[in-house]
Formats: sequence, structure tokens, C-alpha cells
Amino acid sequence: MTTVAAYAAPAAKAPLERTTIERRAVGEFDVLIDIKFAGICHSDIHQAREGWGEAVFPMVPGHEIAGVVSEVGPGVTRHAVGDRVGVGCMVDSCRTCENCAAGLEQYCTSRPTWTYNAVGKDGKPTYGGYSQKIVVDENYVVRIPDGLALDVAAPLLCAGITTYSPLRHWNTGPGKKVAVVGFGGLGHVGVKLAHALGAEVTVLSQSLRKQDDGLRLGADHYHATSDPETFERLKGSFDLILNTVSAPLDFPAFLSLLRLDGAMVNVGLPEEPVQIPYGALFGNRRNLTSSNIGGIAETQEMLDFCAAHGIGAEIELIDASRVNEAYERVESSDVRYRFVIDTSTI
Amino acid sequence: MTTVAAYAAPAAKAPLERTTIERRAVGEFDVLIDIKFAGICHSDIHQAREGWGEAVFPMVPGHEIAGVVSEVGPGVTRHAVGDRVGVGCMVDSCRTCENCAAGLEQYCTSRPTWTYNAVGKDGKPTYGGYSQKIVVDENYVVRIPDGLALDVAAPLLCAGITTYSPLRHWNTGPGKKVAVVGFGGLGHVGVKLAHALGAEVTVLSQSLRKQDDGLRLGADHYHATSDPETFERLKGSFDLILNTVSAPLDFPAFLSLLRLDGAMVNVGLPEEPVQIPYGALFGNRRNLTSSNIGGIAETQEMLDFCAAHGIGAEIELIDASRVNEAYERVESSDVRYRFVIDTSTI
Repeated sequence: MTTVAAYAAPAAKAPLERTTIERRAVGEFDVLIDIKFAGICHSDIHQAREGWGEAVFPMVPGHEIAGVVSEVGPGVTRHAVGDRVGVGCMVDSCRTCENCAAGLEQYCTSRPTWTYNAVGKDGKPTYGGYSQKIVVDENYVVRIPDGLALDVAAPLLCAGITTYSPLRHWNTGPGKKVAVVGFGGLGHVGVKLAHALGAEVTVLSQSLRKQDDGLRLGADHYHATSDPETFERLKGSFDLILNTVSAPLDFPAFLSLLRLDGAMVNVGLPEEPVQIPYGALFGNRRNLTSSNIGGIAETQEMLDFCAAHGIGAEIELIDASRVNEAYERVESSDVRYRFVIDTSTI
Repeated sequence: MTTVAAYAAPAAKAPLERTTIERRAVGEFDVLIDIKFAGICHSDIHQAREGWGEAVFPMVPGHEIAGVVSEVGPGVTRHAVGDRVGVGCMVDSCRTCENCAAGLEQYCTSRPTWTYNAVGKDGKPTYGGYSQKIVVDENYVVRIPDGLALDVAAPLLCAGITTYSPLRHWNTGPGKKVAVVGFGGLGHVGVKLAHALGAEVTVLSQSLRKQDDGLRLGADHYHATSDPETFERLKGSFDLILNTVSAPLDFPAFLSLLRLDGAMVNVGLPEEPVQIPYGALFGNRRNLTSSNIGGIAETQEMLDFCAAHGIGAEIELIDASRVNEAYERVESSDVRYRFVIDTSTI
């Protein structure tokens, strides 16, 4: 066991504060990681404030983790001391169900062990990346390629895979038209990835406030959803709508933008109950679906793809002491585009 | 122009009565069909009663038409006098949009010309199959293979293609588990088709009242949705749920029955506004979608498939004078499993 510094929410809705936590001793197949950077994902806030329901406290959020291996267990073969590595939303899963066997551990039928706000196989709560070290089974640790700086790589562990997986699943590529709804932490990475995959990319954002950034980062078009003409003009035009907004939307309006066999994939999970009118699905054989991060192998594939295409997140690097202020700013969409904690400041 | 006997609703919600209508003269590419049988589809009732909104009256319903060609225009090459043919839900479409070009005329971006309750390219209302003759462009007429009796073939023109198209689109076949929700006009044909396609087929019906028929017609399993244990037992088990019920359902409960990447396809369109909780879509990368009949080529493929597998609808053949009574019985699910009008009785 090792005592490490961390930032934790002591209770639901309470501000995060500096504390210490225990990390387990490095087991046979474990990797000890010196965390260098931890991204702040909107779902950290949902969970720390119990927006998605009852949570485990104290909570050390953080599932966008980039660091360097400092120790490995005797059985470890995939990683070595000094390796640049990442950890995303899961640190374990059952490994035997049909989904785990297919490399889709995120859909483990017994539920994966989430990186924080969960209970591990040892019966102890898991603690996330707002800390200086973490111990993770080597199978749930991915390699960060040399070409990717650790700070801009950290958000890819959630924001990157959350957008990459549905883009790939729905065959994004040349000739395909993709709309990314929301241009924030997830959306801006989604735009970069969809562009690099060869699609024609449109951002659908509430306003044109971030239009310059959108076009610079890879969007071919940028439209304001506050303008009703947007929906008139773009009717029936997209193969894929990647919805990164975790707030209620006018689903019928967005669904009407799909062409035949198009899909609207939701990766955000609103806190409020949202109802979708059934009639909006009728016509054009539209698909309404969701996607939840990605498997470990696909996360590695995404990082390799990002390195090959020079893709990292756009970040604001902050000291750990500013985490509560950062939460407020994320809530008011005042971040371009992802806060990343420099964990040396914890 | 030819005057032909028909059964028509003179106004919304009024009983159907015998009348006469005019059919256009046989044009260069037209086929004149002596209608022999016309199925009664639940959507005939929705439309005759304006359940889906404003409709065109007088209305001659009927889009499950089987008959024999009695005259062809000089340019017709696909059909000849004496051929056994069918007409389904559409009698024309724009023929140039990307969906028409792809053989998916049902999704014509200018909207297909529906067989009734629509206005044709000549500006005149279209009249459906509850009549003795119909004139249709040859491209919207399909061949009924010799092995298929015309009376049991008629319902295939809507109930058959409506279920066949999504079964094929979602790759139903050996190793796939398909649930058919509702065991009525559409459902019983869906069960026969899914079984013939090689899938493991489960009927989910409100009660076990029709269980014997279900198992006899091809279902491997038959469960009552009124039994909460059904949902516990079948959780996460289906690749495809074909929902043939056009009434509100407990969507979250049904969606929970899908395995990873499974799809729930709705082919019924309820009259009431139905809301689907967004949260029900989260997990298992579930797809919620709809399907609307099928294209002309696929309709022909479906009829050929049915002939090859000895599949026809289970029908109650009635005289035209019983059409209003039949409507009442369809509304109360009291038909096994499709009423078909013997149009010689009109």
C-alpha cells in the first residue's frame, strides 16, 4: 500500500479538497503509474454532484489519466518502467463475458470496474486520476505513443475514445457527412477525429461563438442551432450525428437532419429525464442510439491514430488548487476546450 | 376511363359503402389489373378514421392487392395479360432521387405516391384495392409467383414486405435471435419470415392466447408480456426486436431485452403521441429505429422468398359487405390473422 496525495470530494456537491488516499500494493499483473496529467471530464462533475444518482464518497474523480510507469508486477508483459501510458474510464471487467471476449469491455455484462466511483474486485472503492499515483492491472493500461504529449493526450482517454468509437462503428470516412453536436470537450475532439477519418464535418453549436476554432480544428461547416434556418437547410443531409451534449435537445429537429439510414449517436447522458417523441423516428429508417466510451484495444487504436494524425485535445492546463473553479467553468461552458490538471501541483 | 365498383369511406369515420370510381385509361406504361383479393391492413383503418391526420375522401382503402393483368399499355415490358400480379402501398415515386435510384422508392425524398389517400402525378386522388380493377404503372407492379395462392399472397404486399425488409436489413439469419412483438396481421407473417430466414424466433404477445398458433407458424418461444418475469428472463438476449404493435409500449422494458448492438425496429405508427425515455437507449449500444414497407425490388424478392418457402398469410376471406364488421374486429384484435376481401363480391 502506498499513501498518495489526491483531490477528493468528501461528499456529494461538496468542493473538492486535497487529501491522501491509499493505493494497493503492486500485484503480479499490476502497473504503478506516476500520474502526470488528469483531464476534467463533465462526467466527473455529474458524479461528484450525484447528478446521475447515488455515488461513493470520498470521491477522487478523473478518468483521463496520462503518466509514466514507475513499477510493474512480476507477471506484467505489456508495459515496462518508463513507459508513457494512459488509463481511461475502466480499470477492470469480468474478462469472460461475450462482450469482454470481443474486446468490448465497456459493455461487460457484469459491468466494468469504473476508474472511480465504483468498487473494485478487492471490495475497495476505486479512486481516479486527480492524484499522484495509481495502480492498475496491465490489461487496462494503454500505451501513449511518443508523438503525443502527455498533457494533450490525457483527455483522449475519455473524450477521444468516446467520440472515436462511434465514429468508427458508424463507418465514418470519405464521402460521409458527419455532424458533431456541441463544440466542447468531447465535440472538439470529435471534429478533429472525424476530419482525420476523411468525413465532411459540420459543427452544430448553439451559437457561432466558437466558429473560428471549429473551422481551424477541422470542421468544414459550422452552424448555429439557435437559427431555425439551420434545420431547414440541413434537412436529410447527415449520415451520422454525434451528439456530445448532455442536456435535453430538440430530438425531432436533430433527427430530421439524418439522411436515409443515418444514425444519431448520443454520448452524453443528461441528468434530467428526457423524452423522445416516437414519431420523430419514423421516416428515413433513422437510428437513434448511444455509445459508451470504447474497449481497451480500440482505445489503443485511437491513441495510435491520434499520434499518426497529430491529434491532441485543446487544453487549459491548471494547478490542482483550481479544480473547483474549473468545475464551475465547465458547467458554464467556459473552457477551451478541456481542463487538464498538472498533478505535480496536488 | 373505366368505371369500377369499389368500397369507399365517404368521410372520416363513416362506414364504408359500395360505390363506383373512375380508373384512368391504360397509358403507355400502365397495367390494368383485375383485382381478385384485397387485404385489410390496420393502416387502412387508421387512415379511414383520420387517426394519422387529415385524409382524402371519399377513400377507397386497400394496399394489399392481388390480381391478374387484363390489359397492358404499348410500352409495357415487365408484365403481360394473364400474369398474376400484386400492388402494395405505392403506385409511383419520383424515380430520380437518390433513394429511388437505390431501389428504395418507399423513402423517395419527394414522397412516393401512396396507393390510396394520396394524389397521383395526374393531380387526381388515388384509390386503393377495395375495388374490382386498378391501373398502375408497370414499375410499381410485382409478379406473384405461381406457387403462391392469390388470396394468401395479397397481405404479403404490405404485411409481408413490412416485416421482411427490416428482418433483412438487420441481417436476420442463423444464429440470430429475433423477437416479434405482437402476433397479429404483421406479427404472424414476421414470425414465418424470420423462421424461414433461419433465426431463433420468440413471440412477445400480451397473453398466451395465440401461443399454439405462434409455435405452429414458426416461433421457437412464445412469452406473455403481461408477465413481468418475461422481461427478467429475456434481458439482453435479442439481436432484433421487430415491433409490430401500433400502440404505446413500455419502451424501456423492451429495449432492455436487446443484446449488444441489438436493434428495436418499429413498423407500427401509433395514433397517440408516444414518448421514449432517452435513458432507455443508454447501454448495450442499442438502436431504436423504424422501417417503412420496402422497395419494389425487395417486394419482388420477398414474394419469391415466400413462394420458395411456402409462406402465405393466414387469412379470413370475407365478402366485401362485411368490411365494416371486419374493421371492428381488427380494432379488437379479433382476427386470425388477416381479413382478405374477395373482390368479386363488391
